[in-house]
Amino acid sequence: MNKKKDKGYDIAKVQKGQERVRMNIRFYNARILTMKDAQILEGELWVQGKKILYVGDGSDVDTVYQELALESIVWDREIDCEGNLLMPGFKNAHTHSGMTLLRSYADDLPLADWLNQQVFPVEARMDGEMIYHLTKLAILEYLTSGITAIFDMYLTPETIAQACVDMGMRCVQVSGISGQNNFSQALELTERMYQKLNHEDPLLSYFIGFHAEYTCSRELLEEVAALAHKYQAPVFTHLAETQAEVEGCKERYGMSPVKLLDSLGMFDFGGGGYHCVYLDEEDMEIFQKRNLSVVTNPGSNTKLASGIAPISEYLRRGINVAIGTDGPASNNCLDMFREMFLVTGLAKLRENDAAAVDAFEVLKMATVNGSRAMNLPDTDILDKGKIADIIMIDLHQPNMQPINNIPKNIVYSGSKQNVKMTMIQGKILYENGQFTKAYDVEEIYRKANEIINGLR
Amino acid sequence: MNKKKDKGYDIAKVQKGQERVRMNIRFYNARILTMKDAQILEGELWVQGKKILYVGDGSDVDTVYQELALESIVWDREIDCEGNLLMPGFKNAHTHSGMTLLRSYADDLPLADWLNQQVFPVEARMDGEMIYHLTKLAILEYLTSGITAIFDMYLTPETIAQACVDMGMRCVQVSGISGQNNFSQALELTERMYQKLNHEDPLLSYFIGFHAEYTCSRELLEEVAALAHKYQAPVFTHLAETQAEVEGCKERYGMSPVKLLDSLGMFDFGGGGYHCVYLDEEDMEIFQKRNLSVVTNPGSNTKLASGIAPISEYLRRGINVAIGTDGPASNNCLDMFREMFLVTGLAKLRENDAAAVDAFEVLKMATVNGSRAMNLPDTDILDKGKIADIIMIDLHQPNMQPINNIPKNIVYSGSKQNVKMTMIQGKILYENGQFTKAYDVEEIYRKANEIINGLR
Repeated sequence: MNKKKDKGYDIAKVQKGQERVRMNIRFYNARILTMKDAQILEGELWVQGKKILYVGDGSDVDTVYQELALESIVWDREIDCEGNLLMPGFKNAHTHSGMTLLRSYADDLPLADWLNQQVFPVEARMDGEMIYHLTKLAILEYLTSGITAIFDMYLTPETIAQACVDMGMRCVQVSGISGQNNFSQALELTERMYQKLNHEDPLLSYFIGFHAEYTCSRELLEEVAALAHKYQAPVFTHLAETQAEVEGCKERYGMSPVKLLDSLGMFDFGGGGYHCVYLDEEDMEIFQKRNLSVVTNPGSNTKLASGIAPISEYLRRGINVAIGTDGPASNNCLDMFREMFLVTGLAKLRENDAAAVDAFEVLKMATVNGSRAMNLPDTDILDKGKIADIIMIDLHQPNMQPINNIPKNIVYSGSKQNVKMTMIQGKILYENGQFTKAYDVEEIYRKANEIINGLR
Repeated sequence: MNKKKDKGYDIAKVQKGQERVRMNIRFYNARILTMKDAQILEGELWVQGKKILYVGDGSDVDTVYQELALESIVWDREIDCEGNLLMPGFKNAHTHSGMTLLRSYADDLPLADWLNQQVFPVEARMDGEMIYHLTKLAILEYLTSGITAIFDMYLTPETIAQACVDMGMRCVQVSGISGQNNFSQALELTERMYQKLNHEDPLLSYFIGFHAEYTCSRELLEEVAALAHKYQAPVFTHLAETQAEVEGCKERYGMSPVKLLDSLGMFDFGGGGYHCVYLDEEDMEIFQKRNLSVVTNPGSNTKLASGIAPISEYLRRGINVAIGTDGPASNNCLDMFREMFLVTGLAKLRENDAAAVDAFEVLKMATVNGSRAMNLPDTDILDKGKIADIIMIDLHQPNMQPINNIPKNIVYSGSKQNVKMTMIQGKILYENGQFTKAYDVEEIYRKANEIINGLR
């Protein structure tokens, strides 16, 4: 076996080699948290093209050679992990990437003033090209936070998809059908995108969704449910985010948003809700019965003073809980480390119990549970045959030392500064604080500033 | 004026130069948040030795030359800030540095089990040399978070002081007098350290303090108060951290901890409390009357499920509020960005008001108010004659773009990843993700792991 370290791509050997398989990257000297369980493995991880070829302690690599009928392997790159940790990338299960535009544009205002006077007037003048550039800015930030897949609801699906393909980001889009905003995704557009974006690129997929009960008429909600039935598709929406939303729905329909939507057949093929701060007993039973996912957004719920979701109760009931950042106008950042600390920290405050929501449970939410909510089953754990959406956590940083318990270190002490590498589909897009040279990072920043200055 | 960029130290010119003043560093192309007000200045900042010689837009540098009777200046180093932000370093106004040992050692446990079964048995076996090494580990982490001064209460003041001097960290120590733990700082040691560490090194100072009302007898508290009177010194302590602590004090003495301590004359020369989650109306009036500082620790209060402090009310009353991380066994990190988001985020949740505690107010707590609590008046703002405790915030990161509002970006979106440089007393100790070469970082990590493995 070739043991040379970190050499460049060897063109000569590729051309000559009869037995060579196109191996991209061998990680060695790694700690590995596969997320199959809480064990930390010490060993190697091999990436071939878009997929993981081997994960293990290195004692059984002969079986890989035998399976492939190889005697030796020539690597494009061998990376000495120096004991740092490989784990599945984080799944950001709720965001509005294009809202990077409005980061810190107008905070510290009451919610209604912020939305009506500041956000909506600017948003109404955004077009698809602007959203293309603003999504690229968000993708840079996702990569710095180890996020390898996003569940994105925003205005112009085709330019969002283009930005993700151009940058190499995995993106599950969800339509934001709304009766209040002509600019938003109408039913016809949703159906067209559903057909198109689920088959265009392996990085892309598309879900049926709508903005929220309170921005849709009953007729529109029924049409969305009919579309879900037509495709036997799950549906996602903003759900029970604020007390006012739940009360308003009860006034309008005599029942909670969850019960209303379920009564319309909205969740007959699964799906779930973003936020879910205020679910009552019956709502939770519907979530259990329909196998729905809760996507919790603690940063946004905190900053907008919406409340604290009952995460411990969801877990007790076996409800799938994933984590999202929400959009950068309400958070204001796209940082999974902040969200992970808040998920458990706020649960501890809410339950008055320092033992509430264990750290490893939080890591599962940020990886495995996100993959489940977003229907990305090949990205959930590190295993042979899974897609290579992988991050490396830098343990050679003071906040990770001493190494008493790595999952707890990540959740309680981790920060973006610990993200040493972000790989999506076998491609390293961020490493040692630098983005791939394929990006023109300063141009993305320049564009974002130009757009907001033009819309002020 | 010499305009050459980033050259090395020019020995020849130093030896020849009749008119040269020993200038260390010229920062140019900088955005500067002096913290005198919320304005962002564009210009230059000059550091000479330990102090700031000039801050301004560059139009008035002639006056500096005239004052110094100079025609030109030769710089040790000129740093092109590329539009990044200079601001005063963060003051971590409550910590227990040596507890890095127990980071992630035993979390997700009820508080009593965690303390009695996990923390205390290990802590009882720690000695001064161990704490020296563990404090060095904490200092590395402070630097990555832009923290330039700490208010540290831990067990062995002389080895803590040595670690800080060896690393170049500014450290205000406070004695943790306690009746429950012989290992802790007794009255005699406190007085000896008070005399010694307030005069040993400009990086060091020392306050009188005690662990908490509930770990001291009334006699011991009276002795502490007498010591404070002898030196006309302020006193700090853990105060009203939990509801149980306040209730216990009321049972023992018929009054709240704040009222009890004030009745003993403890605060006749000022001081304040760490945590202060549960102050009642009369307690707050005592804080106002005695000019006491609240040091809030939202990360620790969240993780240990202690509660949310009424920060908005403290601000409304004009009480000085500073921010601390608390120790890394209860937080588990020493990250001022996490604390800053939590200060305002938790206030918003508590008050049910998204407008509660403005971002700039939070930055003041992390800088100016910390300096006031810690009696470090020369480190509060960036101005001519102030000590050069300065950080550079990297705005060329996606989470800081677009540049709509820099203070809001820092508080709501910032992370350790944005700390591009940390300077204490004119020395750059951390820059572009690297520590000064004077440190043996891997040896510090190795030591920390060796110590915990030896104590398990």
